[in-house]
Amino acid sequence: MKIDILTLFPEMFEPVVGGSILGRACENDILDVHLTNIRDYSTDKHKKADDYPFGGGAGMLMLAQPIFDALEAVGVQGGIREDGDNGRCRANKKVVYMSPRGKVLDMTKIRELSELDELVILCGHYEGVDQRAIDYFDMEEISIGDYVLTGGELPAMVLVDAVARLIPGVLSGESSALGESIYSGLLEYPQYTKPRNYRDLEVPEVLTNGNHKLIELWNFEQSLILTRERRPDLFEKYVKEHAEGLDKAHKKVLEKVQR
Amino acid sequence: MKIDILTLFPEMFEPVVGGSILGRACENDILDVHLTNIRDYSTDKHKKADDYPFGGGAGMLMLAQPIFDALEAVGVQGGIREDGDNGRCRANKKVVYMSPRGKVLDMTKIRELSELDELVILCGHYEGVDQRAIDYFDMEEISIGDYVLTGGELPAMVLVDAVARLIPGVLSGESSALGESIYSGLLEYPQYTKPRNYRDLEVPEVLTNGNHKLIELWNFEQSLILTRERRPDLFEKYVKEHAEGLDKAHKKVLEKVQR
Repeated sequence: MKIDILTLFPEMFEPVVGGSILGRACENDILDVHLTNIRDYSTDKHKKADDYPFGGGAGMLMLAQPIFDALEAVGVQGGIREDGDNGRCRANKKVVYMSPRGKVLDMTKIRELSELDELVILCGHYEGVDQRAIDYFDMEEISIGDYVLTGGELPAMVLVDAVARLIPGVLSGESSALGESIYSGLLEYPQYTKPRNYRDLEVPEVLTNGNHKLIELWNFEQSLILTRERRPDLFEKYVKEHAEGLDKAHKKVLEKVQR
Repeated sequence: MKIDILTLFPEMFEPVVGGSILGRACENDILDVHLTNIRDYSTDKHKKADDYPFGGGAGMLMLAQPIFDALEAVGVQGGIREDGDNGRCRANKKVVYMSPRGKVLDMTKIRELSELDELVILCGHYEGVDQRAIDYFDMEEISIGDYVLTGGELPAMVLVDAVARLIPGVLSGESSALGESIYSGLLEYPQYTKPRNYRDLEVPEVLTNGNHKLIELWNFEQSLILTRERRPDLFEKYVKEHAEGLDKAHKKVLEKVQR
């Protein structure tokens, strides 16, 4: 998968893209993350990339011209052709703009994006970008949550991390995306590691007795209890979607938690 | 405000904490962001900071010992005293753990955190941390959204950015947190900057005619239309909370959009 990130602050991405799981995926040619500094495409002699918004208002807005040229340089064609085909669908390619106005990111959207051949991410900064860039390139706006941040850079990193984890080969044996409980819709159960006793705090006995069936049911019960307490919305959804398919032992645990 | 970040990957934070608005706030002594490498506190001779979880399961879990010692080194006292006062409330100080199990971050939580004197953020990595650390230090778990990421580092950066913006003096004249429309519960209206015509794409005429009253109403209408279309949940909430207080002209715009 190729990921193009267009930003005024490419240096912010270096330790994230270079490190840990993403860095290894790039080395192994599973991912190809490419950073473009939008300012490099400014035709202004001072390389200006922002200006005051029309109609007033505080703050600066990113100019259309450097964004248009930077997007075209990474192979994105804008405009709507008469047949409605602007070449982007054919290539299994999408342009997203990180923005608090967008649809709030969830695992469904992340899964969808992880199946693209190419993902192009535009990061706004300051007050955002000239609306004509969003319209002309028919961008999908994505928000990582209902809060305001200084720019689209951190949201882009979040998106890339979440999407990359679902691409086959990115997570090696060390961690398994499918094992994570949010994929099944429940919050994760508490986990413990060595030593068994630390400062008089004990690991729950069930986890140390080697009975894997019991451990599995305990984990399941803890996940259910946590989810019911903290996220009744997710709990209700889980019951609706999964209760039917549970085996007898798990069903008994679910009934106990529901009481 | 003092922010302590405890992580196995402090280098990931450097360009974010050093750059842009956060960097300037630190230089001006409005913010004091301090990074601690948890691994430095490992008493293991190989500086080990993680191990396999009890009860099996893929992936590694961060050990309790380096976390306990790192937290105590930045002045956090754990354990519950008999009178329920563990010294943290007194100091207007909170320890949060970034985790998909936590309460989902929103502006209410961000506002609450921005009023602390001291915020301590623990970043998990791999499969997370030994549950005893979370319990002993009575951490508040915070999630930035319903998705799984490789570690708590990106969520911590998101939290720090969002919280810092609300601390008086962090945003200079260049950008105003209160102008952002998500604070009022509406999505932001489209914005445009120079030139008026770019590649035959025109800025909406109303924005260029200098009638500030008309511009204000146009912006309001665009915000309402976008919010109703993309986030009916936020639209409904806005109407419930704000419709009463609107002046006649704004009320008329709202009624038009509702039709």
